[in-house]
Amino acid sequence: MRKILICFAYKGTNYSGFQKQPNKVTVQSVLEECLNKVLKENVSIVASGRTDAGVHALKQYAHFECENKISLDKLPTALNTFLPPDIRVYFAKQVDSLFNARTSAKTKTYMYVFCKDKIINPMLCDMVTKLDYQIDIDVVKKCMEKIKGTHNFKAFCSSKTNATSFDRTIYDFSLEEKQNYLIFKISGHGCLYNMVRIIVGTIIDIARGRLNISCIDEMFKTGNRGLGGKTVDGKGLYLFDVKYN
Amino acid sequence: MRKILICFAYKGTNYSGFQKQPNKVTVQSVLEECLNKVLKENVSIVASGRTDAGVHALKQYAHFECENKISLDKLPTALNTFLPPDIRVYFAKQVDSLFNARTSAKTKTYMYVFCKDKIINPMLCDMVTKLDYQIDIDVVKKCMEKIKGTHNFKAFCSSKTNATSFDRTIYDFSLEEKQNYLIFKISGHGCLYNMVRIIVGTIIDIARGRLNISCIDEMFKTGNRGLGGKTVDGKGLYLFDVKYN
Repeated sequence: MRKILICFAYKGTNYSGFQKQPNKVTVQSVLEECLNKVLKENVSIVASGRTDAGVHALKQYAHFECENKISLDKLPTALNTFLPPDIRVYFAKQVDSLFNARTSAKTKTYMYVFCKDKIINPMLCDMVTKLDYQIDIDVVKKCMEKIKGTHNFKAFCSSKTNATSFDRTIYDFSLEEKQNYLIFKISGHGCLYNMVRIIVGTIIDIARGRLNISCIDEMFKTGNRGLGGKTVDGKGLYLFDVKYN
Repeated sequence: MRKILICFAYKGTNYSGFQKQPNKVTVQSVLEECLNKVLKENVSIVASGRTDAGVHALKQYAHFECENKISLDKLPTALNTFLPPDIRVYFAKQVDSLFNARTSAKTKTYMYVFCKDKIINPMLCDMVTKLDYQIDIDVVKKCMEKIKGTHNFKAFCSSKTNATSFDRTIYDFSLEEKQNYLIFKISGHGCLYNMVRIIVGTIIDIARGRLNISCIDEMFKTGNRGLGGKTVDGKGLYLFDVKYN
């Protein structure tokens, strides 16, 4: 039995998120189906984490165990032959039996992309979120400083979560302004359900004057989701990278 | 009755081409449905030309006549409210009664995009064609010179055409190499059915050594489609711009 790690990417538009669900087409269900075809055995994959419907991954990782002795150099090409073009496997490598794609992940980086164009180029309609408001970038940066560090992020988490502990650490949070695009990158050990989308949505609502910046401290203190901004659209969100030791 | 010209763009992936067809979702059918909703009258649009299934338009034009007196500054926003995000209207302006979006077009420019990456980024899976072969760029450029000018393009036209005359003029044909992308731009007064895709496909087949460059002259001489290369995929093709006087 080998334990194999694959690195892959996907455009989330046509999937009901990453995780397998009955009667839904998900990235996991399509990947497992293709692995079963190529390896001729039933494998279950464990990814670094889930992504929601419409959310993309530029670099995602998953492990699985299998008996098949296929060359790991050939596995990506074999899988890509069966996979739809919106899921691509970049490489596969053997990992030791203690490795776990989810629990061994040290840092996950997410990217959130807004476009300030009055009319979004239809070629990008699944890939960016329209920023319809005038926002104060200095306020955005002040909010980002507040988010960094270790906090109780319960107020930045969907009520649909199964999590029981809400303390999370944000190592890094950057903003790039490039032409008419605003690109956030946020890195942490792990994120709660909808956490990045609620953080970004709350910052935008503060920076456009709908909420006061003090709400961030209040959210950390009270855990009250109702004090925050909206959950921004999944289509602007990307799992950007995952780092392992 | 005003005659109105609209400029719009679309991602062709989810449409059975531009032109209205029974029981198919096309760009024209969706646009006309939204115009009818906004204008509260039945209008038919005439575009600069059709595009095939999966083909995109960065700038497409169409005219229609209507009684409704809506401000033309407000029409694009009104339409974009009803249109799906993969079709966007940029502007509307009144044109004189002799103007025709199809017959008044002086130059149409198409773009064809290949990507040489071994694995295509899934975010671009609907937008570029994978170039799987080593090609000789000098040969590509020689072929492009042969295509320019006025020729009988019957051999570069799908047999499904309704055209009766096949003489067309290519004013300009350029190639840009940008990182791992090959970007062709081809301008002419008008193009036959599948003409750009057959021209590009034939050039690639010559530049990878599957066909001899002399086939281009033979194709012009004989009108025999069978002498040419394959029709490359629609997803790499864009209507790039249309010029009117």
